[in-house]
Amino acid sequence: MLSKIGILGGGSWGTALAVLLAKKGYDIDLWIRNKEQCDNINFSKENVKYLPGVIIPNNVKILNDIEKVVLDKEIIVLAVPSHAVRETLKKIKNKVDKEKTIVNVSKGIECDTLMRISEIVDEEIPNINYAVLSGPSHAEEVAKDIPTTIVTASKKKKVAEYIQEVFMTPKFRVYTNPDVIGVELGGSLKNVIALGAGISDGLGYGDNTKAALMNRGIIEISRLGEKMGANKNTFAGLSGIGDLIVTCTSMHSRNRRAGIKIGKGYSLEEAIESVGMVVEGIKTTKAAYQLSKKYNVKMPITEEIYGVLYEGKDVKNAVINLMLRDKKHEMEDIAEHWEWNS
Amino acid sequence: MLSKIGILGGGSWGTALAVLLAKKGYDIDLWIRNKEQCDNINFSKENVKYLPGVIIPNNVKILNDIEKVVLDKEIIVLAVPSHAVRETLKKIKNKVDKEKTIVNVSKGIECDTLMRISEIVDEEIPNINYAVLSGPSHAEEVAKDIPTTIVTASKKKKVAEYIQEVFMTPKFRVYTNPDVIGVELGGSLKNVIALGAGISDGLGYGDNTKAALMNRGIIEISRLGEKMGANKNTFAGLSGIGDLIVTCTSMHSRNRRAGIKIGKGYSLEEAIESVGMVVEGIKTTKAAYQLSKKYNVKMPITEEIYGVLYEGKDVKNAVINLMLRDKKHEMEDIAEHWEWNS
Repeated sequence: MLSKIGILGGGSWGTALAVLLAKKGYDIDLWIRNKEQCDNINFSKENVKYLPGVIIPNNVKILNDIEKVVLDKEIIVLAVPSHAVRETLKKIKNKVDKEKTIVNVSKGIECDTLMRISEIVDEEIPNINYAVLSGPSHAEEVAKDIPTTIVTASKKKKVAEYIQEVFMTPKFRVYTNPDVIGVELGGSLKNVIALGAGISDGLGYGDNTKAALMNRGIIEISRLGEKMGANKNTFAGLSGIGDLIVTCTSMHSRNRRAGIKIGKGYSLEEAIESVGMVVEGIKTTKAAYQLSKKYNVKMPITEEIYGVLYEGKDVKNAVINLMLRDKKHEMEDIAEHWEWNS
Repeated sequence: MLSKIGILGGGSWGTALAVLLAKKGYDIDLWIRNKEQCDNINFSKENVKYLPGVIIPNNVKILNDIEKVVLDKEIIVLAVPSHAVRETLKKIKNKVDKEKTIVNVSKGIECDTLMRISEIVDEEIPNINYAVLSGPSHAEEVAKDIPTTIVTASKKKKVAEYIQEVFMTPKFRVYTNPDVIGVELGGSLKNVIALGAGISDGLGYGDNTKAALMNRGIIEISRLGEKMGANKNTFAGLSGIGDLIVTCTSMHSRNRRAGIKIGKGYSLEEAIESVGMVVEGIKTTKAAYQLSKKYNVKMPITEEIYGVLYEGKDVKNAVINLMLRDKKHEMEDIAEHWEWNS
């Protein structure tokens, strides 16, 4: 018999995954925190606010009661915004046991503690099976069966392979990776670079500029990640540069859209308001900045974006500052090991 | 006194570099092979065909006589299509000495010999100073002073640093790198992936799909590059993934535009005709395919695109074939070294 799956959070991604899994034949309980929204979706069989145009199959039950949603489920998908992860876990911690598996699809870092989601899970529900699912996967496209690839990482191989099997379809290809730290960091920190890419677009700069930002961006993320214990290769993969690319170049990306507004001179509040959904990158910029200090890693792009968002720095100078840095070798941190002739 | 510079080839990139260097104060001689086009540009001070809307400064002389263009120049920029590199070098080989520097900005592999441009230069004009200049740099944007980054690679540090100094401006940032092989391969082979990205777009697939292609694409390029003696890190840099990103996501890219046509069901000839300029990736696909055989490296994306272009494979199946490959670990070639818990 197929596993029963509970999904916590009915944003675009939680809803898209509910649709994906329901089409595979799983019975899904989807928790929507807001009662009115829950009723609306139940009535219309469509998440008009977050995933318009996609019919929700009948084997997805939309529930407002989180305890019912986690009851007797083998897999619980954590699809709430990252700032709501801890309070959500507190609600379910006495209702789940360690034989279950939590699949996290949120992307962010907890602001006060600088913890990744897996660390929060481990603190709230110690020793429960845990996997993260992350990669270049806009919900809007997954819900329409557009070919997509993604990575699931877990410390335990059998957990990663189980989640791979559950989520895999011919159009939704799931790869395994043991590097939880790298996959979580890549998914979170790319939102900072996506804000920067949006700012660059908003300022009227070009594809050349944005490619440079993305390229330097993944290099600084990778540098921090290595210090934090991640595998460098993960950042060259789907959950690293792959997710960064899709987030920085697609209009589906809320972080990029918020950045465009900021680049055009709107305030942070106006930018957030215009997007109308959680813009994870804004909080993540603060966390990334603090992590760069904590681990003593140079992250020039993150620093510029932090300056723009939190220190009132002139956005017009942000990209130019990056261009004018006194740096001459590509990847200077490794250049000293390169062998030159005369 | 500033160096005198000759530029061979008045396509969009040769013209944009002439404008860039002329604005810096260099006297430029620009060779245009086609007499009529040469006269037109001289008359209108604009390369209407390849770089419309950009005024060519007065210190750029447009000449049809290649010998005059290379005479007494310290730097010769090779900006002809890659298939014309050897015949162009044959025309100038007795007019230049080894104290001069050739800067190659063409991106391609010679079809019959599978040689990179530096190898052709070395065969035709042995021991001349050589640098390649490559990165995410659409000519249209560089000509408009949009912030751009690029890499120059030479075996000789002093040559790379000289070229860096000559080309660098506040909006055109040049990094050095000693890895000629890696920079040349990245610039050439990304055009194959750009065709694939265009095909994916033409088929109506999404940003998720394209990000996956780009990500897997740079991994297979990198795998081949390492076998050919390149430094793996180069492919993670501006001339690798950076250039790949810009080529796969921008409408400036001819390779991507040709791919879109192919994805929509047009023939190869129709696709080339609609772009109206040299589509390097089409020949490069053949060369890349042959290199993968020669070096015994798996390049699944290159193979699929080769099949579509040269073996009449159904384009609709190409992307799906890639999705359905029996592969489960991310970067499986390194997965065996990963440490999993139970």
